[in-house]
Amino acid sequence: MKNITLIGAGRSASSLIKYLLEQSLTYDFQLVVADQSLEIAQQKINNHANGKAVALSLDQTELRQQLIQKSDVVISMLPAFMHTTIAEDCLAFGKHLVTASYISKEMKALDEQAKAKGLIFMNECGLDPGIDHMSAMKVIDEIREKGGKMLLFESFCGGLVAPESDTNLWNYKFTWNPRNVVLAGQGGAAKFIQEGKYKYIPYHKLFRRTEFFHVEGYGKFEGYANRDSLNYRSIYGLDDILTLYRGTIRRVGFSRAWNMFVQLGMTDDSYIMEDSENMSYREFINSFLPFSHTDTVELKTRYMLGIEQDDEQWDMLVELDIFNPDKIVGLKEATPAQILEKILAESWKLAPEDKDMIVMYHKFGYELNGEKKQIDAKMVTIGEDQTYTAMAKTVGLPVGIVSLQILTGKIKTPGVQLPISKEVYEPVLAELEQQGIHFSEMEVPYVGY
Amino acid sequence: MKNITLIGAGRSASSLIKYLLEQSLTYDFQLVVADQSLEIAQQKINNHANGKAVALSLDQTELRQQLIQKSDVVISMLPAFMHTTIAEDCLAFGKHLVTASYISKEMKALDEQAKAKGLIFMNECGLDPGIDHMSAMKVIDEIREKGGKMLLFESFCGGLVAPESDTNLWNYKFTWNPRNVVLAGQGGAAKFIQEGKYKYIPYHKLFRRTEFFHVEGYGKFEGYANRDSLNYRSIYGLDDILTLYRGTIRRVGFSRAWNMFVQLGMTDDSYIMEDSENMSYREFINSFLPFSHTDTVELKTRYMLGIEQDDEQWDMLVELDIFNPDKIVGLKEATPAQILEKILAESWKLAPEDKDMIVMYHKFGYELNGEKKQIDAKMVTIGEDQTYTAMAKTVGLPVGIVSLQILTGKIKTPGVQLPISKEVYEPVLAELEQQGIHFSEMEVPYVGY
Repeated sequence: MKNITLIGAGRSASSLIKYLLEQSLTYDFQLVVADQSLEIAQQKINNHANGKAVALSLDQTELRQQLIQKSDVVISMLPAFMHTTIAEDCLAFGKHLVTASYISKEMKALDEQAKAKGLIFMNECGLDPGIDHMSAMKVIDEIREKGGKMLLFESFCGGLVAPESDTNLWNYKFTWNPRNVVLAGQGGAAKFIQEGKYKYIPYHKLFRRTEFFHVEGYGKFEGYANRDSLNYRSIYGLDDILTLYRGTIRRVGFSRAWNMFVQLGMTDDSYIMEDSENMSYREFINSFLPFSHTDTVELKTRYMLGIEQDDEQWDMLVELDIFNPDKIVGLKEATPAQILEKILAESWKLAPEDKDMIVMYHKFGYELNGEKKQIDAKMVTIGEDQTYTAMAKTVGLPVGIVSLQILTGKIKTPGVQLPISKEVYEPVLAELEQQGIHFSEMEVPYVGY
Repeated sequence: MKNITLIGAGRSASSLIKYLLEQSLTYDFQLVVADQSLEIAQQKINNHANGKAVALSLDQTELRQQLIQKSDVVISMLPAFMHTTIAEDCLAFGKHLVTASYISKEMKALDEQAKAKGLIFMNECGLDPGIDHMSAMKVIDEIREKGGKMLLFESFCGGLVAPESDTNLWNYKFTWNPRNVVLAGQGGAAKFIQEGKYKYIPYHKLFRRTEFFHVEGYGKFEGYANRDSLNYRSIYGLDDILTLYRGTIRRVGFSRAWNMFVQLGMTDDSYIMEDSENMSYREFINSFLPFSHTDTVELKTRYMLGIEQDDEQWDMLVELDIFNPDKIVGLKEATPAQILEKILAESWKLAPEDKDMIVMYHKFGYELNGEKKQIDAKMVTIGEDQTYTAMAKTVGLPVGIVSLQILTGKIKTPGVQLPISKEVYEPVLAELEQQGIHFSEMEVPYVGY
């Protein structure tokens, strides 16, 4: 009996484990799920005949190597920096490896050794990175095969709340890591290329330079620029492309309102606020406003941000209860970003019955026979519940499918890689479609510039 | 014959050397000026009978120690990080030391040894830090001696162009280090305390939250917050003060216009722009604006910044020739901040006959016998020419005066210190007044909050 060992059974592994256990009956393999918490591993296996739960902490070298030695394919769902330990074991015992993380320098350095041993170290196999690579390369390859020349590639992805659970003015709830949402866009200007011209957006303008798009049945969305668009040129072989832009999806209006926090300075994570523990929410916002004996915090906020009285942004602020003088922050030595995260988490918490939603949107502009054309590809996935979330499905299923394709010998090319070759994306996208994750592609008039 | 050795004869040493040579006749001492460039040292000494020029690079340990050994007082006008080498020599040979730099950790660590040997290591003796400490502590001590309790201390300083040389719309020219001007305020939120409440201003709002003040005969000025206001509480013994704010002085309108660069992202020094060398000024500004085939760079700039057609800010931008498509940046691998500095330097260069101006403004709010009162202290110094600038005078003269006071035994207290004790500031401020640098103090109605 073949064996897949999955290390790390956190939130994003639920759908992955469920899928692999289902498939284990057809393809006849055992799934070992190793996690620091035996309970979590057992829970997710749920007494399945082909499943086995193991308690493992990463420093238990002997046990870890025993498990890997018995595997055919190893999946690491650990935090990215821990993959190297697993990858070295895989090299030592001649096992294939699958991760959902960006290829690190350390991982990349193992490429030659992996190739020499005929091992597949497949990374970036989740949602973003993952499904974005596969769905984009499929269309790009098709355009090239027709003889088209790529002019424009724009790609957006976002984790949102499902329409049926969308109950606040922000049209947003935290469905993943709140800290990443609060810090999004920080650390340098966003850089991209538009019609052959490099463009730079400083952080404090990022949420005011959004793009819009429409998904049939789901309405209008907006996207703000990611920091890292340009490295996709070499990965996708788009070195001469005129326009390349990657962004994050939100509901229309979110970014304009989020910009209020940016403008006030509330997303800053670089310093600790004085006596943050005993500060009220009202004192928190007042720290970013000029002192006055007479003017209210409310009026100072409106004046500072230029919010007119009938602007919905105002209601969005009020909805957060951020002017409350009685709610206390209660966090010791906290940064503005940490305090903001706490305030938002109270308002943007998923209710038990709430579902999440993943939206991905690509625009491919190209020239064919002297004509400029465009294909838009869209994907929406709604979560089933708070275990089998849209995020868990879109991150976990491609990892599971890739692992199975490796196990059954359909993916063959060795080396440290990401899923951009036809050998990988074709079977994975086909199986994702079977699992309900599908892209609708349509020709649209060329939007280019 | 006594001896003062001055190491480092750069721009800020001109007035210092002139002053010490003049005084050397009265107080009978020799002034040795050591610099990497013998020519510069000779030029500044100008064949004065009591002066001696020496070529010295810091790594010539033997020569350096010989010079220090022969001195009574050593002045280091080297870059701040080089003071430690000199300070260690001074310890070894039992010599007093004077610098114009902030006390570094390394310098502070020498305090006990300096005290044990009866040596005075006096730092922060220039303008800011320097004259600011002395002029502030004088008034603060006076208020305390009267039985007053300090409520508010605000202190502003700026290097500007003299009114007679003020010929551009920005009312500003580079009189000192242009790079520091471009990067001013970056690296974290400005933090201060107002009426007992901590306030934080993020960088992108810094130039929109200015204070105004008036100097008789010189008109209106504005100040934007420095990052580091709060550490003056412990230095000045103002731990319980309700309001403490330090800022940088500009002419009214400068900060609002400077904010255009901040908003566009042009002051960012954290990344290199693509092909900066061959970029035109027009392409530079266009990099921060959305792409358009039809709209001009001018209109996009106005729209992005919300500049109305009759707003002087627009003329200020145009004055810089920043929309010129033919002027080429010509800097390899340059950051936005470096490119902006180059463009500004062309417009804001001092003409040969131009003079600079230093403005310092303190506000002292206090309570005396149940009454709230305020004293404002103001100082304006105009440069003589481009050698004996206001900056060179205000930085160099206090260093010279302190050195002379040490040489003549009037300043006695040993240790690593800054000029905040009466023993130091009284004679120094009196002599500065003789040299034309004086503060006018006046009682004004309490502005406090």
